[in-house]
Amino acid sequence: ERAGKPEAIYAEGKSPEEVVKIIKNALKHLKGVLVTRASKEQIEEIKKEFRDRKLDISERSGTVIVGEKREVIGKVAIISAGTSDIPVAEEAVKTCEFLGLEVKKYYDAGVAGIHRLIKPIKEINSDSVDSVIVVAGMEGALPSVVAGLVDVPVIAVPTSIGYGVSLGGLTALFSMLQSCSSGVAVVNIDNGFGAGVFAYLISRTIRKRLKS
Amino acid sequence: ERAGKPEAIYAEGKSPEEVVKIIKNALKHLKGVLVTRASKEQIEEIKKEFRDRKLDISERSGTVIVGEKREVIGKVAIISAGTSDIPVAEEAVKTCEFLGLEVKKYYDAGVAGIHRLIKPIKEINSDSVDSVIVVAGMEGALPSVVAGLVDVPVIAVPTSIGYGVSLGGLTALFSMLQSCSSGVAVVNIDNGFGAGVFAYLISRTIRKRLKS
Amino acid sequence: ERAGKPEAIYAEGKSPEEVVKIIKNALKHLKGVLVTRASKEQIEEIKKEFRDRKLDISERSGTVIVGEKREVIGKVAIISAGTSDIPVAEEAVKTCEFLGLEVKKYYDAGVAGIHRLIKPIKEINSDSVDSVIVVAGMEGALPSVVAGLVDVPVIAVPTSIGYGVSLGGLTALFSMLQSCSSGVAVVNIDNGFGAGVFAYLISRTIRKRLKS
Amino acid sequence: ERAGKPEAIYAEGKSPEEVVKIIKNALKHLKGVLVTRASKEQIEEIKKEFRDRKLDISERSGTVIVGEKREVIGKVAIISAGTSDIPVAEEAVKTCEFLGLEVKKYYDAGVAGIHRLIKPIKEINSDSVDSVIVVAGMEGALPSVVAGLVDVPVIAVPTSIGYGVSLGGLTALFSMLQSCSSGVAVVNIDNGFGAGVFAYLISRTIRKRLKS
Amino acid sequence: ERAGKPEAIYAEGKSPEEVVKIIKNALKHLKGVLVTRASKEQIEEIKKEFRDRKLDISERSGTVIVGEKREVIGKVAIISAGTSDIPVAEEAVKTCEFLGLEVKKYYDAGVAGIHRLIKPIKEINSDSVDSVIVVAGMEGALPSVVAGLVDVPVIAVPTSIGYGVSLGGLTALFSMLQSCSSGVAVVNIDNGFGAGVFAYLISRTIRKRLKS
Amino acid sequence: ERAGKPEAIYAEGKSPEEVVKIIKNALKHLKGVLVTRASKEQIEEIKKEFRDRKLDISERSGTVIVGEKREVIGKVAIISAGTSDIPVAEEAVKTCEFLGLEVKKYYDAGVAGIHRLIKPIKEINSDSVDSVIVVAGMEGALPSVVAGLVDVPVIAVPTSIGYGVSLGGLTALFSMLQSCSSGVAVVNIDNGFGAGVFAYLISRTIRKRLKS
Amino acid sequence: ERAGKPEAIYAEGKSPEEVVKIIKNALKHLKGVLVTRASKEQIEEIKKEFRDRKLDISERSGTVIVGEKREVIGKVAIISAGTSDIPVAEEAVKTCEFLGLEVKKYYDAGVAGIHRLIKPIKEINSDSVDSVIVVAGMEGALPSVVAGLVDVPVIAVPTSIGYGVSLGGLTALFSMLQSCSSGVAVVNIDNGFGAGVFAYLISRTIRKRLKS
Amino acid sequence: ERAGKPEAIYAEGKSPEEVVKIIKNALKHLKGVLVTRASKEQIEEIKKEFRDRKLDISERSGTVIVGEKREVIGKVAIISAGTSDIPVAEEAVKTCEFLGLEVKKYYDAGVAGIHRLIKPIKEINSDSVDSVIVVAGMEGALPSVVAGLVDVPVIAVPTSIGYGVSLGGLTALFSMLQSCSSGVAVVNIDNGFGAGVFAYLISRTIRKRLKS
Ligand SMILES: Nc1ncnc2c1ncn2[C@@H]1O[C@H](COP(=O)(O)O)[C@@H](O)[C@H]1O
Ligand SMILES: Nc1ncnc2c1ncn2[C@@H]1O[C@H](COP(=O)(O)O)[C@@H](O)[C@H]1O
Ligand SMILES: Nc1ncnc2c1ncn2[C@@H]1O[C@H](COP(=O)(O)O)[C@@H](O)[C@H]1O
Ligand SMILES: Nc1ncnc2c1ncn2[C@@H]1O[C@H](COP(=O)(O)O)[C@@H](O)[C@H]1O
Ligand SMILES: [Mg+2]
Ligand SMILES: [Mg+2]
Ligand SMILES: [Mg+2]
Ligand SMILES: [Mg+2]
Ligand SMILES: [Mg+2]
Ligand SMILES: [Mg+2]
Ligand SMILES: [Mg+2]
Ligand SMILES: [Mg+2]
Repeated sequence: ERAGKPEAIYAEGKSPEEVVKIIKNALKHLKGVLVTRASKEQIEEIKKEFRDRKLDISERSGTVIVGEKREVIGKVAIISAGTSDIPVAEEAVKTCEFLGLEVKKYYDAGVAGIHRLIKPIKEINSDSVDSVIVVAGMEGALPSVVAGLVDVPVIAVPTSIGYGVSLGGLTALFSMLQSCSSGVAVVNIDNGFGAGVFAYLISRTIRKRLKS
Repeated sequence: ERAGKPEAIYAEGKSPEEVVKIIKNALKHLKGVLVTRASKEQIEEIKKEFRDRKLDISERSGTVIVGEKREVIGKVAIISAGTSDIPVAEEAVKTCEFLGLEVKKYYDAGVAGIHRLIKPIKEINSDSVDSVIVVAGMEGALPSVVAGLVDVPVIAVPTSIGYGVSLGGLTALFSMLQSCSSGVAVVNIDNGFGAGVFAYLISRTIRKRLKS
Repeated sequence: ERAGKPEAIYAEGKSPEEVVKIIKNALKHLKGVLVTRASKEQIEEIKKEFRDRKLDISERSGTVIVGEKREVIGKVAIISAGTSDIPVAEEAVKTCEFLGLEVKKYYDAGVAGIHRLIKPIKEINSDSVDSVIVVAGMEGALPSVVAGLVDVPVIAVPTSIGYGVSLGGLTALFSMLQSCSSGVAVVNIDNGFGAGVFAYLISRTIRKRLKS
Repeated sequence: ERAGKPEAIYAEGKSPEEVVKIIKNALKHLKGVLVTRASKEQIEEIKKEFRDRKLDISERSGTVIVGEKREVIGKVAIISAGTSDIPVAEEAVKTCEFLGLEVKKYYDAGVAGIHRLIKPIKEINSDSVDSVIVVAGMEGALPSVVAGLVDVPVIAVPTSIGYGVSLGGLTALFSMLQSCSSGVAVVNIDNGFGAGVFAYLISRTIRKRLKS
Repeated sequence: ERAGKPEAIYAEGKSPEEVVKIIKNALKHLKGVLVTRASKEQIEEIKKEFRDRKLDISERSGTVIVGEKREVIGKVAIISAGTSDIPVAEEAVKTCEFLGLEVKKYYDAGVAGIHRLIKPIKEINSDSVDSVIVVAGMEGALPSVVAGLVDVPVIAVPTSIGYGVSLGGLTALFSMLQSCSSGVAVVNIDNGFGAGVFAYLISRTIRKRLKS
Repeated sequence: ERAGKPEAIYAEGKSPEEVVKIIKNALKHLKGVLVTRASKEQIEEIKKEFRDRKLDISERSGTVIVGEKREVIGKVAIISAGTSDIPVAEEAVKTCEFLGLEVKKYYDAGVAGIHRLIKPIKEINSDSVDSVIVVAGMEGALPSVVAGLVDVPVIAVPTSIGYGVSLGGLTALFSMLQSCSSGVAVVNIDNGFGAGVFAYLISRTIRKRLKS
Repeated sequence: ERAGKPEAIYAEGKSPEEVVKIIKNALKHLKGVLVTRASKEQIEEIKKEFRDRKLDISERSGTVIVGEKREVIGKVAIISAGTSDIPVAEEAVKTCEFLGLEVKKYYDAGVAGIHRLIKPIKEINSDSVDSVIVVAGMEGALPSVVAGLVDVPVIAVPTSIGYGVSLGGLTALFSMLQSCSSGVAVVNIDNGFGAGVFAYLISRTIRKRLKS
Repeated sequence: ERAGKPEAIYAEGKSPEEVVKIIKNALKHLKGVLVTRASKEQIEEIKKEFRDRKLDISERSGTVIVGEKREVIGKVAIISAGTSDIPVAEEAVKTCEFLGLEVKKYYDAGVAGIHRLIKPIKEINSDSVDSVIVVAGMEGALPSVVAGLVDVPVIAVPTSIGYGVSLGGLTALFSMLQSCSSGVAVVNIDNGFGAGVFAYLISRTIRKRLKS
């Protein structure tokens, strides 16, 4: 493990057998392993091969935890807007859970119905979350609005959702980078994993300070 | 005049003398004339040459009305966010006023401080505006939020404001075209004039129906 | 229903069963429902499940109205050019009809045979349409030409039709945004639905004024 | 002279003295010389140095003919739309005249006022022009419309005129390349010179055939 | 037939039955018909339905002539470089032949082996071709080189061949538009048909002049 | 103050007088104020007007602190590579200092001389910094390398430095978003201010937890 | 064979039979032949047809050597980072081996784990390699780092690996072109073959000098 | 000095005094120093300050050698096409000379007049140059043509010359990367310095082998 960061297995482009082999290798020296972007076939193979292990699977996003999660060290809120953004949000959720973050999910909170944000924001501000992950496609406006209402770091994940000028997520990405609220930083398009690791590093740093 | 639409004078790239000459020609058969994108020098020349005429000048946006405005036929709300968006908003304002629209201005209403939108939206929904023009740069999120809260057509004007990934306004433009609220249509970057004419055509069509 | 705007069901990426389930839910509190971007399989499932309901289906565009349309409140003209633009035009047509607009269709009116525009323009100008929707791919010139000839708002819909430099519709989009005729506003590439809702909001505002 | 094509002097980026020197050299073995993209200063220097020569100067476009034009061998029509496209059109005009083409100019013929095209098209179709050059910025729709109405080759020149999504002429260029009328070929943005040479080659080929 | 230009049938996106139906309709008032971009299935259907007609089929490019070609009125040379550019070249060939041009083909003449150009150029310059069509993908350098060696108009067709930075043909297109030789005009990426029609219009204009 | 975030004054495009006026207003209810992107003239005016106040000025980056900084609550490391990246780094430094972060600067640590990173990384890992800001132009590789060596969050700031394919910083931005090390999040091009605020929010959250 | 460079067979888009036929033709006058981008089916056909010949096959990259390699004239190091870059690296390896270069492979050397570069760099600097090929996708940082540590030419190959802002390899390409270390030159995205030929030309020039 | 590569001083964005100071520092431990991208003012300052030193200055490209060049170790040919490409070519020339390469210059060799390449190619092939640098703007075709005729490595430098679709050199760059001749590698737009260093590394490697 490099600098405290998890080596997740990126399944895309590998055969189910290869994925299983890499997991087995990893489990020799680790208690649990995170697999991202796994296809239906890869998940089937994993289920078959590791039926004696704890398995936490999000089919929609292709994320799988084989074995143990790490012990809980912090808390994160994950907000997304449209149904089509959910797979990316789920990748973030599973990554966070694997790394020991308790996750508060808010999955129906778009800017087109701004009133639906009131409750999540209230909970976030009263609850002790260490950071907020906001997943949004289309015009990518959600992180701006959220960052204007909370006082913890906001990690924005643009998604490739949309058609026409969505440009595979570039519009959402650029939108987020220009957020007129400060306090937003951004990861690559669809990179729920990256957002999860970043949120983990924030909570981990908090925990380190608390200990010292 | 073509199909009821005003032939405004686009001053950019013309000499002050040329602009004055075109205005004079127009005033032979019209009671008033709209000039857009006029520079400081062009405005000085206009002031000098038409000191006997009514002059309505927005220096910040370079928009000038020489002579009479048309009689009032409708009402429009114009919302913008940052100070840097104001010149574009002003171009829309003057175009609307010239064409006979009463304008309600809201100039400090960004998505980063969503609570500042409450009052304008309330007024718009209680008042009988025929359409709303929303001017926004940066991440261009404002029209989405507004369109989720009003029930008249929203005309969005992206501005070229911003740096880095603003791409001269393309990000705001694409953002607006992807608005996750329906009821938004968009004009070219910085095209306050075009938005004004479009708002005018909506009010004009209403007026025609009222008459018939 | 948010701010008077319809919540259409965007079928893309959902299973036929999911789509049917969402429709059923919606019909609990609504008399009619609009589905867009439905695939052949989804349409078959809808036909089977709602065979007792009124069904208005456009196979080419994948638009389906299940149940009742709203009562008629206005009129719109929809112009398109090539055969390949028709699916997008049909999405606009069905959206308008669902929302209570009478639709006048003109489907063979490209700029390459400008004489074919004469009759539609004449009818539009004599008839009391509230707005015109122009659907065009390729070089996207049609809205400019039309807006130069009518005096109601023109809503332009670029389509992703074409090859080489069509860039998935971006060329048509940019072309329309630069229309040298004023009175044109634009929606996202292939977004017939958005154009329909916008046309509806214009007619709805007219109707509100007529009532008050 | 390479393959019958003229070696014009491209003045941009050269000092007035360099330009004059190159002209002098060229005039040693040629009766006339074409200079393009000359600045005010370069033109002043040329006027001073060649005051004993025939000079045909277009200040607006920075095109200068020093000495004799070639004898007339054909005819071309040059159509443009906005005032801002005129410099590019003038570069084409001077290039054609220099190379021995009689030029019919139509400078106020945009697609927004389609009726203004009637007279030019009529003249072009009755007169024996060998080709038509169409210069257009903004949405670049003019060549499509013209090519739908004439039966000679149409050479389209996109201009860098416009703001927002004009993208320095790319939108007009792409628009023209996608012309839904066939019979259009395109040269580089603002390249009036290239269009002129191409028109010349068409007329030259005709002339060769007539002779043989 | 519009302005002397052929209405070819663009088969892409149509069912084999639709294509056959459109051909039948066209043949009611025409002696021959050109079909472009036909798939294997569409060609099979055409073969079956029109087995009593003359059929001239290029399978590689999906171009089909059903019935009679027009009588020969001129001559064109068509040069291409790589094997992968041949389908586009063939579309141009068939279009030219259909419209009454004799075609001289040179299919193995890339800039990487410049000596292979010597023979074609010699033949073109001695023979009376009216224009040259150059089809090239990759870096699109061929038209520049050819135009530096011939004295008739060069019509350049960029192809979408290549990987990496070929950008679907945009690089070849831009390269050609910047040709440092003058005398080159360009059509859309892969548009062999457009190049053919343009070559035809040049020859047709020559023929008209010869007659008058 | 919105959600605990500072309202800095963005000086670009304002007159020196306007800037001074806004500062004065702010100082009515605040002990200190941060000004970013101030020009030489604006800085002169500020020096003159606030000569009785504490002034902390970074001329190179145009960042000015008028009045008091907040009390220190955390620590951050700021790494940059080339001399031309320093202004952006300085904007981050001043923002952090204003908000109460102690800053450790490393200004000569590029990937071309990887050994120069050894000392900074050692210090960062032994010292209790809460986060690392990495400022880099050109190929933007530095954050990847750094994130592979530390275990706190890395905030990457792409700069618009470079020529040719730097594309105004887009290449560095995209490079950073694709970082093959996880634990990196990115702000807009040249946005040293945004990075500073984000680092502050991380330290602030740590401090809140320590207190509770 | 042109200018000493190999004419490899680019299999993409050809039928297995065509590929076999071209190989047979080549083997009439050559002892060995290189095939790139061969699909599974093409490789099967080659295996069947040339079972009596020496065959050196890299399935992952679709590269095949039929017959003899050239005699060894030099040495090259090939470095790559991620598992997904390996196919491109393999294309380079096989090209080099075919042309007579001894290859030293280092396949697990990314910038995220910079310590893994120590051994390869040491070997390269002590061993007499003539050049280094670096294959990298994602943020393309590897060549910069390597070129800062070796003193022979570095040939960089960007790969199309990655998602989101990888833009099909453009980000890696641009990153490499901006390398802040000098001594790097770049070939097209995924062009392992081109890198191999370039490395061969360096070694070949060395060998020529040694002989003379 | 890092890995045998020269640390040139990149003057852009530095004050004349800063440049002079950096040179002085460098000359403390070096016999000669290379400055690139120096402005007129910077060059004047250098002339004044180092009037006692050897100075080799290329004003057109802003390249200056202060003090001694390295001893000659190899030979390179530098080819360019248009007059406007010469500054970039000169940057390469001076860099090569500084590093100890004898330079053969060919400055008028564009693809539009292919015959002008015959002599340079002949000389290159008979003479013992170690590599060829080709500098080209516009359509960037020259390196392809050259690489088809020589058998040493070709280093291509795209220039930002051109207008319209030159896109600041991107078209030439992409063109070169797609060269249909193999044996070409590319450096950043306008990066004559980088090409020179790369050529130097090739010659240096040859020299090392000759010695060992
Ligand atoms: N969904 C993901 N997006 C981006 N990077 C990932 C993802 N999942 C895993 N990774 C990274 O990919 C690397 C593993 O790649 P591989 O060696 O191909 O399995 C790990 O270092 C992770 O940091
Ligand atoms: N306006 C223009 N646009 C494009 N090319 C031009 C133009 N004017 C002249 N040229 C070409 O530029 C070349 C002369 O360039 P130069 O040697 O730099 O003066 C001639 O071969 C012309 O073909
Ligand atoms: N390969 C082609 N590329 C571009 N346009 C074409 C092509 N083939 C036919 N066309 C044009 O497409 C039109 C017919 O389209 P459609 O009505 O859809 O069959 C004709 O007017 C032709 O001018
Ligand atoms: N013209 C140039 N283009 C690209 N890089 C250059 C150029 N001139 C110098 N350099 C590089 O810039 C670095 C010096 O940058 P600086 O420290 O800002 O003077 C050196 O390492 C050179 O490798
Ligand atoms: Mg969203
Ligand atoms: Mg805004
Ligand atoms: Mg169309
Ligand atoms: Mg125009
Ligand atoms: Mg080619
Ligand atoms: Mg850097
Ligand atoms: Mg990599
Ligand atoms: Mg060139």
